[in-house]
Amino acid sequence: MKSELDALMQARNMDAFIVFGHAENNPPMTYLTGGGHVSHATIIKKRGEESIYFFGDMERDEAAKSGLRLMPYSEYDTVALFEKANRDGLLAAAFRLELMLKDAGVTSGRVGVYGFYDLSAIFGMLTHFNDLMPEIEFIGEAREDSIFMKAMETKDENEVNRVRRMGKITTEVVGKVKEFLTVCDVRDDEVLLNEDGSPLTVGDVHAKIRLWVAERGAELPSGFIFAIGRDAGVPHSSGNPKDLMRLGQTIVFDIYPAEAGGGYYYDFTRTWSLGYATPEAQELFDQVKEIYDKVKDNFDLNTPFRNYQQMTCEYFESKGHKSQLNTKAPVEGYVHSLGHGVGLNIHERPFSGLLVGDDHRLVPGVVVTSEPGLYYPEKGMGFRIEDTYWVRPDGKMEILADYPYDFVLPMKRWSK
Amino acid sequence: MKSELDALMQARNMDAFIVFGHAENNPPMTYLTGGGHVSHATIIKKRGEESIYFFGDMERDEAAKSGLRLMPYSEYDTVALFEKANRDGLLAAAFRLELMLKDAGVTSGRVGVYGFYDLSAIFGMLTHFNDLMPEIEFIGEAREDSIFMKAMETKDENEVNRVRRMGKITTEVVGKVKEFLTVCDVRDDEVLLNEDGSPLTVGDVHAKIRLWVAERGAELPSGFIFAIGRDAGVPHSSGNPKDLMRLGQTIVFDIYPAEAGGGYYYDFTRTWSLGYATPEAQELFDQVKEIYDKVKDNFDLNTPFRNYQQMTCEYFESKGHKSQLNTKAPVEGYVHSLGHGVGLNIHERPFSGLLVGDDHRLVPGVVVTSEPGLYYPEKGMGFRIEDTYWVRPDGKMEILADYPYDFVLPMKRWSK
Repeated sequence: MKSELDALMQARNMDAFIVFGHAENNPPMTYLTGGGHVSHATIIKKRGEESIYFFGDMERDEAAKSGLRLMPYSEYDTVALFEKANRDGLLAAAFRLELMLKDAGVTSGRVGVYGFYDLSAIFGMLTHFNDLMPEIEFIGEAREDSIFMKAMETKDENEVNRVRRMGKITTEVVGKVKEFLTVCDVRDDEVLLNEDGSPLTVGDVHAKIRLWVAERGAELPSGFIFAIGRDAGVPHSSGNPKDLMRLGQTIVFDIYPAEAGGGYYYDFTRTWSLGYATPEAQELFDQVKEIYDKVKDNFDLNTPFRNYQQMTCEYFESKGHKSQLNTKAPVEGYVHSLGHGVGLNIHERPFSGLLVGDDHRLVPGVVVTSEPGLYYPEKGMGFRIEDTYWVRPDGKMEILADYPYDFVLPMKRWSK
Repeated sequence: MKSELDALMQARNMDAFIVFGHAENNPPMTYLTGGGHVSHATIIKKRGEESIYFFGDMERDEAAKSGLRLMPYSEYDTVALFEKANRDGLLAAAFRLELMLKDAGVTSGRVGVYGFYDLSAIFGMLTHFNDLMPEIEFIGEAREDSIFMKAMETKDENEVNRVRRMGKITTEVVGKVKEFLTVCDVRDDEVLLNEDGSPLTVGDVHAKIRLWVAERGAELPSGFIFAIGRDAGVPHSSGNPKDLMRLGQTIVFDIYPAEAGGGYYYDFTRTWSLGYATPEAQELFDQVKEIYDKVKDNFDLNTPFRNYQQMTCEYFESKGHKSQLNTKAPVEGYVHSLGHGVGLNIHERPFSGLLVGDDHRLVPGVVVTSEPGLYYPEKGMGFRIEDTYWVRPDGKMEILADYPYDFVLPMKRWSK
């Protein structure tokens, strides 16, 4: 929770932090400001004190929505600083940052730097800055262990409700895609047809998905996956727009929309086979569903998340598949980890990889995915089932958006 | 152009560069790879040699679309590096980067760092790295002068066509919004009504804009502005969703969609007043249109862009408005600069601010906006006209999407 930031700073002997960048698609900034259209923002927080939000005057209305203590950049004489820096933009920015830090009461100590922003400009400015205020040491943190990722790991009820709202949109869109596909006419060679008689492509389905997400006011800032056949067997292939939609092939539909402007995500996957499934595909799907259910039944409060990755690897290996347990970077079988936290980042704490520390646990307030899968690109098939769970204050795991798990989707105008 | 990168590196005595981050919404990465859904990518290019694209195996299909030389991260023994680093993720990443640089033939010299990505993690890793390979010096560059911004400044025909395609989508959407607004019924108090008789809000219009952009396969990664009255007088206020749509108030509609997944942008603004305009608003609009036309008529090949900012400031000051020419950070009058380059970044070279160097010129291949405006939030009004221009190889300036400039939009079911 956000209220933990001061304690996290103290534990790491961090005296202040700076967040750089725009307020959109920049999780630490969004976390502190609540979002809004601010292109060039900086937040400085001294430990134990209020955050100060620096912004350009043109965006004062957007900045004011944050409720934070505001300071316009126009308080600093940009022209004079630029001349003082002999028109070196990075040095001028370093001069301004020096003034901003002083205004925030930060004159020495360890200062964490954060934000998704232009690495080159910030790195260049911080390099200059070292000469100006050597009493300040800038600190970078590993993504998965940063104070922000730690604070964001547990969500309050408002945050969970925002994720849940995205879950509702997600399952509505998935339901519309299912309906759209299953009413299609089918050609003799089992290719689905558009209303005008042309073959339905993966690209046509992608366009519908984008539209139906946008209609609901959500966005797809990290893309989405709707892939068939071989591409379904490559976990992060987003699907080849030119592929034709056909019966009896596995479809992996992994969709992770977020609130417009860079807000909370939901994460969800279903695997479908239209009309019928081959016996081999059905068997592999059943295995994925079996371990999905087994993990769900075994979820237990405060358990390290990686224990379930271990369980999933062992299950799949017992069925003759490769996994990360005994194969380095497998490209067939079970090739990824079981799940991850979801929030303002599509991937955040807790993580479930076998190497992840046992401080990644299913504690109350975390929101995580469970997403076992099997991948056989050479066989032209792939499978994944994924829901997003909230560990409630009462210790129960709750799926934030329900949706059926059916693998074979009967076609309304076609039968064998 | 991309082909200039080697010469730019040489001119800056840069021996190699690294681009960090995902392939989406990360302009330097998109520029080199062409896009694709790759979450954790790195590109290393030694001067004079081919770029090497490092990627995770799950995303091999997406990475392969780039046509670049590929190297999966699985070539490096992540587990062993993590143990060697005593489970310090940043140090392990630095160990891996050392191997990656060696594989790219980079063992010493000045190495530029780029990318829109997690500052904290990269800064932390580079700090560790300094101890491992002190022969390598990392370089950050000012945003507006980086080798990427310089290379991106001039576009080839394919890039211009992509911008032009976004321009077509932009003007289609603007036309639909105009049509939607002008057929509305109007209440006695001049508030526009939805079909169901409820008052039409700015938020209702925002939803339509999002939908119509998505229907055309484009995205709004940096938001958009549709603001009325006082909010139109604050240049970057995106508009208050709860405001009611009314006749006779200025509406600033600034829309800058991009290709899905983080591609090329278009940038466009019109100012409208529904039904009628107040005499004061009409007078200010006419001034904005007059200087817009004057700038257009005076655009001349190879001229420094800031000359037109100077011209615009002088014009507005001659009409009694404040501008940056004689007022520091004005919040009324003409408060911003005339325009900017548009490409994979919504704001890129050339820039037009009064402080910008005279190497920001209207050379063949640049794509720039021209967007004079006037802002009077206390009077409840604002104005801006903006088109995106291409400086063609033959030296002519071409607007990439035509659209009428009408200020007062007659209402089809209402008259005074």
